[in-house]
Amino acid sequence: MTSEWLNVSSTPLNNQMAEKAEVRQLQLTKPPGALGYLETLAIRLAAMQGTLTPSADKVHITVFAGDHGVAARGISAFPQAVTVEMLRNFSRGGAAINVLARSLDATLNVINLGTASDPGSLENVIDRHLGAGTADFVEQAAMSEQQFYDALNTGRQAAERAALDKGHLFIGGEMGIGNTTSASAVACALLGKEANVLTGPGTGLDNKGVSRKAEIIAKALIRHQTTVGNPLEILRCLGGFEIVALAGSYLSCAHTGLPVLVDGFISSVAALAAVAISPDTADWLLYSHASAEPGHAYVMKALQARPLLDLGMRLGEGSGAAVAVPLLRLACELHNGMATFGEAGVSEKAK
Amino acid sequence: MTSEWLNVSSTPLNNQMAEKAEVRQLQLTKPPGALGYLETLAIRLAAMQGTLTPSADKVHITVFAGDHGVAARGISAFPQAVTVEMLRNFSRGGAAINVLARSLDATLNVINLGTASDPGSLENVIDRHLGAGTADFVEQAAMSEQQFYDALNTGRQAAERAALDKGHLFIGGEMGIGNTTSASAVACALLGKEANVLTGPGTGLDNKGVSRKAEIIAKALIRHQTTVGNPLEILRCLGGFEIVALAGSYLSCAHTGLPVLVDGFISSVAALAAVAISPDTADWLLYSHASAEPGHAYVMKALQARPLLDLGMRLGEGSGAAVAVPLLRLACELHNGMATFGEAGVSEKAK
Repeated sequence: MTSEWLNVSSTPLNNQMAEKAEVRQLQLTKPPGALGYLETLAIRLAAMQGTLTPSADKVHITVFAGDHGVAARGISAFPQAVTVEMLRNFSRGGAAINVLARSLDATLNVINLGTASDPGSLENVIDRHLGAGTADFVEQAAMSEQQFYDALNTGRQAAERAALDKGHLFIGGEMGIGNTTSASAVACALLGKEANVLTGPGTGLDNKGVSRKAEIIAKALIRHQTTVGNPLEILRCLGGFEIVALAGSYLSCAHTGLPVLVDGFISSVAALAAVAISPDTADWLLYSHASAEPGHAYVMKALQARPLLDLGMRLGEGSGAAVAVPLLRLACELHNGMATFGEAGVSEKAK
Repeated sequence: MTSEWLNVSSTPLNNQMAEKAEVRQLQLTKPPGALGYLETLAIRLAAMQGTLTPSADKVHITVFAGDHGVAARGISAFPQAVTVEMLRNFSRGGAAINVLARSLDATLNVINLGTASDPGSLENVIDRHLGAGTADFVEQAAMSEQQFYDALNTGRQAAERAALDKGHLFIGGEMGIGNTTSASAVACALLGKEANVLTGPGTGLDNKGVSRKAEIIAKALIRHQTTVGNPLEILRCLGGFEIVALAGSYLSCAHTGLPVLVDGFISSVAALAAVAISPDTADWLLYSHASAEPGHAYVMKALQARPLLDLGMRLGEGSGAAVAVPLLRLACELHNGMATFGEAGVSEKAK
């Protein structure tokens, strides 16, 4: 158990490169600003990567999986067995994130941090067993300090692997029945919101189910009210192994200077926690999509984030971030590959 | 000059295939609906292409270019010479649409329908000269009947080339200094709106420029008020060669049963005209992005359309549609490639 790495500073952005990239955008053969947010993306990636020719070619996706003690309270539309069943599906390449990673030629790692039942050894799944899921956080802290720092560190190692491999972009994904309940609880504690504001249907609860879920979250918030103002303790007491690992990976990406494309609701709550732990982390986070989970909009607002896509997705696994990768790639290719007014002999805008 | 082809019926959608695709979506290993609009896209493409394994791999992009007589009134932030200069840029591969077409491995055709000055023979540009730009539509009809039907037919031929080549998707783009003025005028006439409602900055006019542009459009609408209720005449009197060609290409795509991904404001106005001429055309149109040009939202509303992206783009050339292509491809790959609950042994949602 080591936590000293949490005190490392984030890599600063290269603001000089951002200025150069901005100048280049104005020279490209298009009306100034006509590529909209794609211009902003290219400039931000140039500042992160410290190059005038940014890239999103090499993408590293890590899906963190884990079970949740609170699932025993019936807060999901799917049975808890699905976490392990989906790990088998990831292992065999049949899940959405497998299809997307293949299509994007991205590196995909799946890490099992601890499921209620033991799936045994699975091909293409890394085993980092921290326990048979978290404890029921209505009754006690979701995890021990040891489990918590191990989960954070597992995320850090995933980010470091991606950085060592000279990845251009890191995506974290998650799988864990019950994890919108945990994410909503963490978001409530971080933002000081009531449970009913940030609780939604997750994988498909009906209205009655959502009310029940909000009541359970409200109880957990009372149980862990002493965590207020302490994002590490909020994560330990109300989080899940996969949510903590996501937060650890984002913190580490900021340390090593690796751009992150954040997925939907659960990933964004992990991002919110990472930013609460170390505010400069925000410099390294890009947001891929607006989740259909209603709490996501509050989290985006708190992060002053503007997601790239709004397709009504709510799957997790990193799938929404993966779907947004081509936009980053095209933003870079336009930035790097278009002719300038000078090169093409095209007249500029009348003054 | 032949216009009989305009009376051909649209290919009907394969609704049985849409139902089968919907059933398949419910069997894939994800909560029902969790892929949001990507599910809708896959189902719509299945219905258009009449197959349970739809595809957006083979993309045909045709950029139509032409000059506008009304440009002499100073309604653009860029000089008219830019139309020809950009044709040279397309020819040499330096424009945004060249970069995007290369990245997407799409077929790109550029057709010059008539510019104010003659660029001579340009490599990779098809010459379909209909005149030295349109006439100033404040004074007279933008084009003769002959020019109008030739422009429509040029669009039809582009769509037919794509269909013959067994393309999965057609994108039309446009280039022509002054063409947001023409598109706004056409949209006003089709929708019965005042000029100031649908007039925007185009490539970058300031507020004063936008007011002037709206006044000029208002004059043109009075000049051609007898066209009301006749979309063909509205297009002939207020359109541009490239806008008419776009409308012709969309009509022809619907005839041959080729899905269309519509670009931004100008392309959407051409789509609005095509749907006014032949309402079933709407079945074949997908909308790629919400343009920053303010009139676009009105056109989208009239078409009951929901664009895929909202990135503040306003470039034209088909660039916004090209940027959205990867979303269609990923939607198809998820639909075709994910495992089903049965295949993967994953438990379904609790009833």
